[in-house]
Amino acid sequence: MTDAATPKRVLSGIQPTGRPHWGNYFGAIRQYIDLQDGNDGFYFIADLHALTTVRDAATLRQNVVDVALDLLALGLDPDKATLFVQSHVPEVSELCWILLSGTPMGLLQRCVAYKEKVDKGIPADAGLFTYPVLQAADILAYDSQLVPVGADQVQHVEVCRDIAGRFNHQFGETFVMPKANVLDDSAKVPGTDGEKMSKSYDNVLPLFGEVKKIRKQIMRVTTDSRPMEEPKEPADDHLFQLYSLFADAAGREEMAAMYRRGGFGYGEVKKAIAEASESYFATARERRADLEQNLDHVHAVLQAGAQRARSVAAEVLSRAQSACGLR
Amino acid sequence: MTDAATPKRVLSGIQPTGRPHWGNYFGAIRQYIDLQDGNDGFYFIADLHALTTVRDAATLRQNVVDVALDLLALGLDPDKATLFVQSHVPEVSELCWILLSGTPMGLLQRCVAYKEKVDKGIPADAGLFTYPVLQAADILAYDSQLVPVGADQVQHVEVCRDIAGRFNHQFGETFVMPKANVLDDSAKVPGTDGEKMSKSYDNVLPLFGEVKKIRKQIMRVTTDSRPMEEPKEPADDHLFQLYSLFADAAGREEMAAMYRRGGFGYGEVKKAIAEASESYFATARERRADLEQNLDHVHAVLQAGAQRARSVAAEVLSRAQSACGLR
Repeated sequence: MTDAATPKRVLSGIQPTGRPHWGNYFGAIRQYIDLQDGNDGFYFIADLHALTTVRDAATLRQNVVDVALDLLALGLDPDKATLFVQSHVPEVSELCWILLSGTPMGLLQRCVAYKEKVDKGIPADAGLFTYPVLQAADILAYDSQLVPVGADQVQHVEVCRDIAGRFNHQFGETFVMPKANVLDDSAKVPGTDGEKMSKSYDNVLPLFGEVKKIRKQIMRVTTDSRPMEEPKEPADDHLFQLYSLFADAAGREEMAAMYRRGGFGYGEVKKAIAEASESYFATARERRADLEQNLDHVHAVLQAGAQRARSVAAEVLSRAQSACGLR
Repeated sequence: MTDAATPKRVLSGIQPTGRPHWGNYFGAIRQYIDLQDGNDGFYFIADLHALTTVRDAATLRQNVVDVALDLLALGLDPDKATLFVQSHVPEVSELCWILLSGTPMGLLQRCVAYKEKVDKGIPADAGLFTYPVLQAADILAYDSQLVPVGADQVQHVEVCRDIAGRFNHQFGETFVMPKANVLDDSAKVPGTDGEKMSKSYDNVLPLFGEVKKIRKQIMRVTTDSRPMEEPKEPADDHLFQLYSLFADAAGREEMAAMYRRGGFGYGEVKKAIAEASESYFATARERRADLEQNLDHVHAVLQAGAQRARSVAAEVLSRAQSACGLR
């Protein structure tokens, strides 16, 4: 992009539905945290979205704190970006209703994420169905320009643009048109079975948690049964792919050479992965432990974030209300 | 009901979608205004609901003021009841999303009001579809006990009870269970063509407006062509029914006797209707004209009402948020 240097309002929502794994980190978290540099990043913990799946109060409360701890530990800097909890900004719910009126049913019925869940037999509730409208409210409430999303979420940004476009067309220019910023999923992050790492495959390696336990999980990663001495092509091997996530160019080259030479055990590679990943996440792990001892600080960060977010959202909501005659 | 004497929180929402007519007044408005005596009445002007149909800012703004003027003119007393505008209570939109999560799609798909509109070819938007959930949020946000509704809206109160019951079941007792109070539609209010008075039949006589114009409309009400001298059964005649709305028992008896005698012109009856209705609505008409000159007072009433409504809704919302883990 030619305008990569212009600072942008970047919006990213993170679902508090469970603990992040390596796939989440390399496929998304790291990338959107990186966007805090040189941009005006708004990062929210999507507790309202989580309501459709997390139907237990204590779990939801814990998950929200965990996500805040995760993000701050992984480098989200409250001095650079705004971190807040979705439900702390009532303006988003207000905007959501305004947008529901005027959103054609067909637009939502076509949303793949909804259709897929229904096809899988997940009982559909109205929250799941109208999810893209709340997402649109999230995006539009902050005049967001850039929305980093996985490829599977691009459709929802398109729905948001559609909704915003209809409103602007009917009531006059009100909303900033956001753009999807598709995350780079080229880094291969295989799970413990060699398939793509994903919670739904139950093959994940967690970012945080007991080091010993994670090391055990690494040592149990599936391998093939080719003899040790056989030279191997590193690029195709999921252990090599995992190692590559954490190693620098020199380390990667060295490991690749070992693969091509042959005469090594997968146990060696696994140990290298364990060590490399531990050292890679060491700082984050320490930071998380410190923050856990200082939850007041975390809550203060979220409160300040909500305040900043609300000041922006209130202005946008007021624009929308005036445009459609609610004020 | 045995507990008719216990004061109840009564909730009624009025759509700002057009000017009220005689049918609205006798079939609904008069009845729910009457409930302000001996109860704690909450009356809101449903601008958020109107968004699905009124897609013009100036019209919506004017309609909202008109409904406030109408209700105050017709006797809604801000010292007895709480009058406010729906969108002035953000808590309702917040509650709406919380309730959307957990509302089965099937529940909304079965709602007759939605199905009928779709069957009539009115393009369905998500606002129309999720309308019963916003209505549930309206009802539940104020711990409403009694909801006066027309027979066609009873289903929506049932949906509200269903939604509240699910939430209470899943997260613990949170919401007060409301009851529908079905309005008495026994008073026959025929329109200018003798059919039931209804905006959709284009046969209405307005409550307010130019007296001369309304009188003309009355004089043009359809009549049959039986000869003047023929005695007539009053109960079956729509002119007699219209007259009965405004006359006291003695006046009604006198008119009935004239019908049975025969030897009168329908013009006489129409004139009597015009005079009786004008005198019936004279005070309201005067009060409305005064209020129109004093819009600051009207806005102050709405502001005070919103403040009172918000203080109740904030407490209920907080209960709901704690129950499901958003706080």
